[in-house]
Amino acid sequence: MKQKLFTVGPVEMYPTTLKVGGEQLPYFRTQEFSDLVLGCERSILSLADAPQDSRAIFLAASGTGAMEAAVINSLTSSDRALIVVGGSFGERFCEICDDAEIPYDAIRLDPGTSLNPAILKSYDLGSYKALLVNAHETSTGVLYDIPRLGEVCRKYGLLFIVDAISAFLCDALSMKSMGIDMLITSSQKALALAPGLSIIVLSARAINIIEQAHVHSHYFGLKKYLLDGTRGQTPFTPAVGVLLQLSDRLRSLEKLGTYALVEQSAARANYFRNLVKDLPYKFFADHPSNALTALSPQNGHSAYDIYEILKDKYGFVVTPNGGKLKDIVFRVGHMGNITYEDLNALAVAIKEIV
Amino acid sequence: MKQKLFTVGPVEMYPTTLKVGGEQLPYFRTQEFSDLVLGCERSILSLADAPQDSRAIFLAASGTGAMEAAVINSLTSSDRALIVVGGSFGERFCEICDDAEIPYDAIRLDPGTSLNPAILKSYDLGSYKALLVNAHETSTGVLYDIPRLGEVCRKYGLLFIVDAISAFLCDALSMKSMGIDMLITSSQKALALAPGLSIIVLSARAINIIEQAHVHSHYFGLKKYLLDGTRGQTPFTPAVGVLLQLSDRLRSLEKLGTYALVEQSAARANYFRNLVKDLPYKFFADHPSNALTALSPQNGHSAYDIYEILKDKYGFVVTPNGGKLKDIVFRVGHMGNITYEDLNALAVAIKEIV
Repeated sequence: MKQKLFTVGPVEMYPTTLKVGGEQLPYFRTQEFSDLVLGCERSILSLADAPQDSRAIFLAASGTGAMEAAVINSLTSSDRALIVVGGSFGERFCEICDDAEIPYDAIRLDPGTSLNPAILKSYDLGSYKALLVNAHETSTGVLYDIPRLGEVCRKYGLLFIVDAISAFLCDALSMKSMGIDMLITSSQKALALAPGLSIIVLSARAINIIEQAHVHSHYFGLKKYLLDGTRGQTPFTPAVGVLLQLSDRLRSLEKLGTYALVEQSAARANYFRNLVKDLPYKFFADHPSNALTALSPQNGHSAYDIYEILKDKYGFVVTPNGGKLKDIVFRVGHMGNITYEDLNALAVAIKEIV
Repeated sequence: MKQKLFTVGPVEMYPTTLKVGGEQLPYFRTQEFSDLVLGCERSILSLADAPQDSRAIFLAASGTGAMEAAVINSLTSSDRALIVVGGSFGERFCEICDDAEIPYDAIRLDPGTSLNPAILKSYDLGSYKALLVNAHETSTGVLYDIPRLGEVCRKYGLLFIVDAISAFLCDALSMKSMGIDMLITSSQKALALAPGLSIIVLSARAINIIEQAHVHSHYFGLKKYLLDGTRGQTPFTPAVGVLLQLSDRLRSLEKLGTYALVEQSAARANYFRNLVKDLPYKFFADHPSNALTALSPQNGHSAYDIYEILKDKYGFVVTPNGGKLKDIVFRVGHMGNITYEDLNALAVAIKEIV
C-alpha cells in the first residue's frame, strides 16, 4: 500500500528534493561545493533571523548529536545548566549532561503542559550558565514561550540554547529578537530532507565561548567547524547528499521567508485541528506547536492501536509515542509535502475509526 | 562538463543506489525498517568475516565519528594505546585520543612506507590496552600488514581496532582470521553510497568491553546502539536514506562475497597501475591498497596542478592531497562504479599532461 507520512521525520519530501537525492554526488573538497555550503549558511542565518556575526555549522549527525555538540562546547563540569523537561527530548538534554558530567537542574513539567514563567522565580537564575530548552517538545507537541524565556536569559546573563529541531520554520523563532545563542535544527523535519544532517546556528557570544572551549570530543569540537566553515568546508566528510538537498530546498524557502513559512504551518495546523476538534480526542498539548498535533483518544481506544490501524488499513503513517505515553498519545505531523486534501483524508479515516 | 569521479569518497555510485536515493523515505520506527536494518547487520557481519557473536552498529556520522566512538568506548585515561601513524588518518586517531585524554604512543612512519614489524620489538607491547591502525592509510595509499599486526595483538592481548574505512571490500580483511576486535567502515567508500553512515563491527570481546564502559558521550555511547540494535533500531534517528541504499547494495555484494570483491578491486588497481607504470610517476605507497593508487610526479609537475588540469580540462576528478603532500601526491581512487574504459581514458589524459 502506498503510504502517506504524517510523521515527525522523515516527512513527505518534495519532488525536487527527491530529484536531487537521485543524482550522482560530487567530490566535495572543491570551490564549487564550498560555494554551495556558504550559500546554505547565508540562507540558514537569514531564516533563523540570526544577529550580526552569527555563524551556522553543519554536522553529519542526527539532532541528538547536534544537541550534544551544543552542550559540550558551551558547558563544563564547573558550570551548571537549567533544563526545561516536558518530555523525552527535554530528558535527552539531561542524559547528555549526565554523560558529560555537567551539573544541571531540571524543571520537570507534566507531559502536555507548557512552562508557567512564575515557576522560574523559585530558581536562583543567576547561578546558571545556560538555559536549555526544546522550543517544541516533540514528544508531546508543546511549544514553550521562547520569547519569555529569552527575556529571562537576557536579564540573568544565561546562554540560551534552543533545540529547534522540530520548531524551525514551523513556529515563529527569531534568534535576534528572542536572544537565542544556539539554535539547533535537523534536516528531516520542516526542511523535509533526508536525515543525517544537523545544523547549529551560533550567536557571536556562543562563538566566543566555543573558541575558548576545551572540548573532549574530536568529532563534536565545533571550533574546527567554525574555522573550516569560513571557506565553506567541514573538518570531516559532510553529509554531501543532504547538503545538496538543503541547497536546493533553501532556494525556494528563502524566497518565501520565515514569516510566510510559519504562517503556512500555522494555517495547516489550524485546518487539521478544526477537522478533528469535535471527535472524541483531547488535544494533548496546552500550547501546541504548528509542527504537529498530539491527539489523545478519550473513548478508551489505545493511541498505538489507532496508529496501527491508520497505517495498515489506510496507509496513513502518523507518529506513535513510546514509553508511558504509548497508549495515550499519537502525533499527526504537519511538516513536509502535505496538502489540505491529505489532511482531509486523514481526518476522514480518524473519524471512521472512532 | 560531465565529471567522472576517481575520488576516495563520495565515489561513482551505481544506478540502483541512485534510484533508491531518489525515492521517498519511509518512517523508520516500524517492523519493516527494523527487518531491513537487521538484514544489513547480517550481511555486514558476513562480509567482514566476523567471528561468532559479533555485532554491527550503524552510526549517523562520518568515519571520524565512528573512529571516535570506537576509541572512547574501549579506552579511558587510565589505559594506553599504541597507534600506527603513517599519514593524516593515523594522526586522526592521535587527535581523537588527545581530545579524549587517552594516553598513547605513536609509531610514526615516513609517508608512503608501511610498518616494518621489527619496529614493534622496541615497544613494551604488554603495556598497551589496544593497537589502533588504519588498515589502509587513505592519505598515502599504504596498506598495512593487518594479519601480522593481528598476530601481535593476539600474542600480547591487545584489543585490535582497525579503521577499515577505505579498505573494506577493497583489501582482504577477515575479522576472524586476523583477530580484529573493532572494524570501522563508512558508506561512501567501496560501498559507493552517499556519505553520512558509518559502521562499526564488534567482536564479542569488544562488545564485552563496551557493555562495561562508562562513556562521556551520549551520542557515541555504543551500549545503547547494541541494545536497540537487537531489534533493528537505533537510539537516535539513523541515516535512513543511506541505510536503504546500503540494504539495496548489500543484496548484490553478498552474492559475490568478500573474496570476489577484493579480487575485483585488485584486478582494477593492477590494471590501472600497468597503464601508468612507464610514465614519469612514482607509486607513492611501498605496499599499496587496492582502493586507490597514489601517484607522485617525477618530472617537476605539481601533483595539485595535475589534479586541477584533469578536473577542469577532462572532467576526471582524482583526489588531491593536502598539507605537505599537496604538490607531491595525488590519488586515483578505484572504488565505486568505474569501468576499465574509464581507467583507460584517465590514463590517456594523464599521459597527455605529461
